[in-house]
Amino acid sequence: MSEAYSQPGRLRPAPENFLDDQQITEVKAGRRDFLRSSLLAASAAMLAPLTARAAEGDANILNLPEWSTTSGKSVADRPYGSPSKYESQVLRREPRGLTPLSGNSASFAPLQSLFGIITPSGLHYERHHQGWQDIDPARHRLMINASNPAFIKQAKVFTMDDLMRLPPVSRIHFLECGGNTGTEWGNPLVPTVQYTHGLLSCSEFTGVPLRLLLENCGVDFKKARYVLAEGADGAALTRTIPMELIESDEVLVAYGQNGEMLRPENGYPLRLIVPGVQGVSWVKWLRRIEVGDQPYGTREETLGYIDLLPDGTHRQYSSIQECKSVITSPSGGQSLLSKGFFNVTGLAWSGRGKIKQVDVSFDGGRNWKTARLDKLVLDKALTRFNIDWVWTGQPAILQSRAIDETGYVQPAYRQLREVRGSQSIYHNNAIQSWEVLPSGEVNNVQTI
Amino acid sequence: MSEAYSQPGRLRPAPENFLDDQQITEVKAGRRDFLRSSLLAASAAMLAPLTARAAEGDANILNLPEWSTTSGKSVADRPYGSPSKYESQVLRREPRGLTPLSGNSASFAPLQSLFGIITPSGLHYERHHQGWQDIDPARHRLMINASNPAFIKQAKVFTMDDLMRLPPVSRIHFLECGGNTGTEWGNPLVPTVQYTHGLLSCSEFTGVPLRLLLENCGVDFKKARYVLAEGADGAALTRTIPMELIESDEVLVAYGQNGEMLRPENGYPLRLIVPGVQGVSWVKWLRRIEVGDQPYGTREETLGYIDLLPDGTHRQYSSIQECKSVITSPSGGQSLLSKGFFNVTGLAWSGRGKIKQVDVSFDGGRNWKTARLDKLVLDKALTRFNIDWVWTGQPAILQSRAIDETGYVQPAYRQLREVRGSQSIYHNNAIQSWEVLPSGEVNNVQTI
Repeated sequence: MSEAYSQPGRLRPAPENFLDDQQITEVKAGRRDFLRSSLLAASAAMLAPLTARAAEGDANILNLPEWSTTSGKSVADRPYGSPSKYESQVLRREPRGLTPLSGNSASFAPLQSLFGIITPSGLHYERHHQGWQDIDPARHRLMINASNPAFIKQAKVFTMDDLMRLPPVSRIHFLECGGNTGTEWGNPLVPTVQYTHGLLSCSEFTGVPLRLLLENCGVDFKKARYVLAEGADGAALTRTIPMELIESDEVLVAYGQNGEMLRPENGYPLRLIVPGVQGVSWVKWLRRIEVGDQPYGTREETLGYIDLLPDGTHRQYSSIQECKSVITSPSGGQSLLSKGFFNVTGLAWSGRGKIKQVDVSFDGGRNWKTARLDKLVLDKALTRFNIDWVWTGQPAILQSRAIDETGYVQPAYRQLREVRGSQSIYHNNAIQSWEVLPSGEVNNVQTI
Repeated sequence: MSEAYSQPGRLRPAPENFLDDQQITEVKAGRRDFLRSSLLAASAAMLAPLTARAAEGDANILNLPEWSTTSGKSVADRPYGSPSKYESQVLRREPRGLTPLSGNSASFAPLQSLFGIITPSGLHYERHHQGWQDIDPARHRLMINASNPAFIKQAKVFTMDDLMRLPPVSRIHFLECGGNTGTEWGNPLVPTVQYTHGLLSCSEFTGVPLRLLLENCGVDFKKARYVLAEGADGAALTRTIPMELIESDEVLVAYGQNGEMLRPENGYPLRLIVPGVQGVSWVKWLRRIEVGDQPYGTREETLGYIDLLPDGTHRQYSSIQECKSVITSPSGGQSLLSKGFFNVTGLAWSGRGKIKQVDVSFDGGRNWKTARLDKLVLDKALTRFNIDWVWTGQPAILQSRAIDETGYVQPAYRQLREVRGSQSIYHNNAIQSWEVLPSGEVNNVQTI
């Protein structure tokens, strides 16, 4: 079977002689942008013409392949489609030994293989606390109640029918596990961007603003300043959400993801959407919302997703995901097959709003160039960046550094450790480094 | 098996007593918008409390379901995810007898079941001229040549490797078959929105601007004002594209769709993206681009996708999809189970730019109210609209009418026929009517 084209282990440079010498000089100097400038410059050196390719044994040029000479398959063959057989290696993956129980584990999205900003639902990362369930929506219920009767006029139970008949909204947002990039606090442990940053996805979600439901129950928003969200799986995961996020209308009780119903692994038939906040708060298989007047400090909130600080105290409710970015190609585990032009691409995101700028360094942070952002720059969503690069065959260290609309700049490891110390597992948003060796091999390294 | 929750045949109204009498009056008068106004109004009539529901026999309230008392499934179970077993009826469908050969046929996207604007790739509509192929990307080639050697400096052949190393862009665009809604030119033939409007989808596409490749081949843009795009399947479908679309940088040679590689049914590994233009021009399994100085008028262009006009002439290259919209729920084939509040939702789009406004009528076009547009209003992309409605049990005719940023207003059938006559199959963008009977049954009707 052929190599999956969207998961290359070996990166070939752009077509031979795609650039002439003058253009290469301009790319190196950052003076050329191939999506804004013309390539009309009439270089004598071009791709080999057809006849030369045929002479070199590229038989495809002269012979029609079987897919051009046979009848194709019927539309009835796949009423629900799936990827090409040639993409069978593009999968979410669980590192061996990540947890003792594979139900209480995580699988990582193959960021090195993805394009644009939408994560296909079949490759959305997973983190379960007691495995995933495929819940019967006809039997599922959402209860809304209160820790004190004075906070609510009427506790209620909603069926899925009830919820799906209410006015919905749809929004594209990223979802990142608070533990994403947790392996990188110490010496780098994992080789690829799938494992360093793959607890990250981005989807269009559809649902009802939670505020609408709370208002319908007659919640007293002056007294009830927090809610507890609870899942219906065996873990009965619980998380506290501050009411001000709900009042902004951003928090959704969602049933739709990328146009269809949520997938079972992502909380079918109902999950909470808390834009900008770490994934654990986006409670899956949502069955209950309780309103209260203080943070709940439940078992899960006390044991996990907490940052131990240098002064011995801990930070418990650090829920906003700070501005972060990563180069997804070239990235660890890939190899550059030869010198030449490469498109360098990656993702940037911020829990505090839109991405304003992404800078890329090819020399470990000494010099920075501003990358191109794709047109679709959305609030609390992944943003795709690209930048031209000519690899000369010399060692290089590739880094990206994002800046969000609040002006916050993604920190280097040194800066993050000055504030957070070295005992953290969660909430690592430091700049990621990929080292390119003269052999073309790309490795995960840390530069201090 | 339970009814699929995203494909309801029977539409229940919003929760009983979701609105009090005053609120119902306000919705009917168009003075209330449930996503912008508060529902705090303390109605005495609310959803039944827990105890009442339990007394009514809703055992789920008091007993934990099995998914809360058993261990869940492992992350390793599905390295590539799929929908819930409860959604097995949400499928693209081929009407029986649409064509003699199912390879040369179409399957329709289940618009009544979809949310937001992204179409999941597994449900993207299909239209093949000789079935679909799963092409080996390692053997696939794209040739760029010219009808006259004076138009190009160097014809070239690109591998997938070549193309995937070049600077890409990603954009969300709708894709509509020129034959969508073709059944509705005469008396309505098909019962549901899946069949009236389901040759319509919207995805994030990733690829290289075709202009970049043509420039790399040294195309003379002053002389070569058209290109011919050719597919690699058995049909070898060909379509002429005017060079001005390519010069705007909107036309892409794409390999990515919704974050992953194209699906085989959608042209894997390479297809043309021609935003705003009918689907047949988005040539799948793209193998060749030829530049020339006039439209090619090939067999497919001469035999199909042509509009016969009242004066006996025909319109051959009407490629831009004009502004259009449709209510997807409630829609034909559904039933309203009782009077009360319903969220009415649908899609609007225009090949000429962004949607500016969507109006909805509940009385067959006599009165119109402006619908809410979801935040994400993009150029040449689907736009989702919603509007509040209280059904009183009386007969109603639901219609939507879109206006794009050029000021163009979607026409009624009468207006469209005045210009286009009645002999057309293609390019029907008229206002769609759904009739609601006192029984709650919703039917496809035409109002003249």
